[in-house]
Amino acid sequence: MKASVYYGPQNVKVENVEEPKVQPGTVKVKVKYACICGTDLHVYRGEKKIGARAPIISGHEFTGEIVETGAGVTQCNVGDRVIVENFWGCGECIYCREGEYYACQQLEAYGLQHPGGFAEYVVVREDKVFQLPDQISDEVAAVIEPTAVAMQSVKNSNLKIGDKVAVFGAGPMGLLVTQCAKAAGASQIIVFEIHEKRRQLAWEMGADYVFDPTKEDPVKKVQELTGDGVDIAFDAAGAEESFLAALDSVRPKGELMIVSVFADYVTYSPFFQQKGVKTIKTTRGNHHMFPKVMGLLVKGSIVVDPVITSTIRLDDIVELGYKKLLAGEEGKVLVSPEL
Amino acid sequence: MKASVYYGPQNVKVENVEEPKVQPGTVKVKVKYACICGTDLHVYRGEKKIGARAPIISGHEFTGEIVETGAGVTQCNVGDRVIVENFWGCGECIYCREGEYYACQQLEAYGLQHPGGFAEYVVVREDKVFQLPDQISDEVAAVIEPTAVAMQSVKNSNLKIGDKVAVFGAGPMGLLVTQCAKAAGASQIIVFEIHEKRRQLAWEMGADYVFDPTKEDPVKKVQELTGDGVDIAFDAAGAEESFLAALDSVRPKGELMIVSVFADYVTYSPFFQQKGVKTIKTTRGNHHMFPKVMGLLVKGSIVVDPVITSTIRLDDIVELGYKKLLAGEEGKVLVSPEL
Repeated sequence: MKASVYYGPQNVKVENVEEPKVQPGTVKVKVKYACICGTDLHVYRGEKKIGARAPIISGHEFTGEIVETGAGVTQCNVGDRVIVENFWGCGECIYCREGEYYACQQLEAYGLQHPGGFAEYVVVREDKVFQLPDQISDEVAAVIEPTAVAMQSVKNSNLKIGDKVAVFGAGPMGLLVTQCAKAAGASQIIVFEIHEKRRQLAWEMGADYVFDPTKEDPVKKVQELTGDGVDIAFDAAGAEESFLAALDSVRPKGELMIVSVFADYVTYSPFFQQKGVKTIKTTRGNHHMFPKVMGLLVKGSIVVDPVITSTIRLDDIVELGYKKLLAGEEGKVLVSPEL
Repeated sequence: MKASVYYGPQNVKVENVEEPKVQPGTVKVKVKYACICGTDLHVYRGEKKIGARAPIISGHEFTGEIVETGAGVTQCNVGDRVIVENFWGCGECIYCREGEYYACQQLEAYGLQHPGGFAEYVVVREDKVFQLPDQISDEVAAVIEPTAVAMQSVKNSNLKIGDKVAVFGAGPMGLLVTQCAKAAGASQIIVFEIHEKRRQLAWEMGADYVFDPTKEDPVKKVQELTGDGVDIAFDAAGAEESFLAALDSVRPKGELMIVSVFADYVTYSPFFQQKGVKTIKTTRGNHHMFPKVMGLLVKGSIVVDPVITSTIRLDDIVELGYKKLLAGEEGKVLVSPEL
């Protein structure tokens, strides 16, 4: 079968590989769409701290149809439309045992340590599979995983109905955070994004104000619009510049929520954080979020269609996927092994 | 009267100044003891961000007896033994109006912007005065203010009964945090401190383990003792080294609480904070804590006597106060204008 294989930094090849075989307790999924995630870009750029193996078939956000079930599988059937929760913990640490597996320090994931979804077929554990309701299209299904991550960041934050929010970075994650913050009742959502196309998308995803941070000082702009700052600033850009502006944009007693994977270190002043009695929180992946995301999608409380900006062939994953995303020119790119 | 006046960095003079006069709504307090605070040391070293005026009579932790009351004063009488809450907000911002005046961004304080307690007499607002119960000695009264700050840090943290705690730095604030964490039900308190005398004090203040971080790796030691880290690490040292070790000592989903005033910037990795889904919180001063501190002191649930390591004359404030504290050789130093 055809698959996109990560060999190392800037070294991704689409090639023919052996089709994976079902094992007991697993199912074989024919991939309909897979999405390129920000984490894939960090891996592509060669950041070792992400912990990706090489060579590995990448892709941890995917949807498809079950074509074969392994021995002992009882919860899924051939023909089921499914999405796959892409990672799992050790099962033994306190976080796993308490169901908070996203905090497990031994996480493993499809597309990072195990063959992922940038392929015609992928074999996954039965217990990581969720049935898709008919009301959710294949395209929208493909972005359920990143939506779950965005929703987890909102859930982990202290965001309450009526709060004011700033989102730094309107890449796919910032756009999904914007939509989730709106659904959570934010009264004012201010988005900062340097790329014109993504600024347009931010409006469609529920932003009340959108600015180019290279042209408007974000901290001043937030002060102008809010008085003394937003309740929560989400850093979905992952750079020192966004971190510092986001922290300064937060009102006293407010919080900065780190959503992005940071490539580099950050230098900041704990004194000024303390002067504002501010909190810096983090979020990572998701846990138990897929059913909640599907619930809100079916209900129509969140609409994620605008975040999908293109659908490409698996063969074009580097040129039209990785490279365009790194250039900030896309929202969510769907990769189709069927095209 | 005699007073210790801050003129600028490393420039503190004990000299004769005019006695302050009561105004309507204020009371004149004959100072019994005043304590040197870590903030005073930051001011002494010349850190402008603290916002101290110069020249100013320093000292914002003090206790004494009312010797005169101004017009309209109804809640205090001459002869009352009192402690003084040392700062106040603008009274108009949302934080002041909601009673969370410690988050006001226009704070003013005795000893920083208004004449403080390193003097024979100080005039203070009636509404900042608290009556001392008979069971609390003058010496212990003098450390109620820093104890309130330590207790606020524990209250602002997520510390719950049975939690494991690390305290970085056993200066006066770290020692008081140790005692408050014990009173809050911490099951294990691990203290790191480089100075021998302060390590001894940490044992007396309730530490279960005390280490010299120049001889034992704090992160390894915490892992050894706890398995996967403490629930809460308090940074009461205020340096990049303590910040990084404290953050690394925290278990997944745990928190770092910044208690200290940081002189400098810190360079750290948001990625590793996020990998552990950790939170960085801050605390600042206190609000509404004095009655709670007095309640626990009277009840005997907290004992702060060991933190007081010497009582000195006002004349000796620089040599035996500031300089010895900067050298890490003391716990809390009481300054007596009566000696």
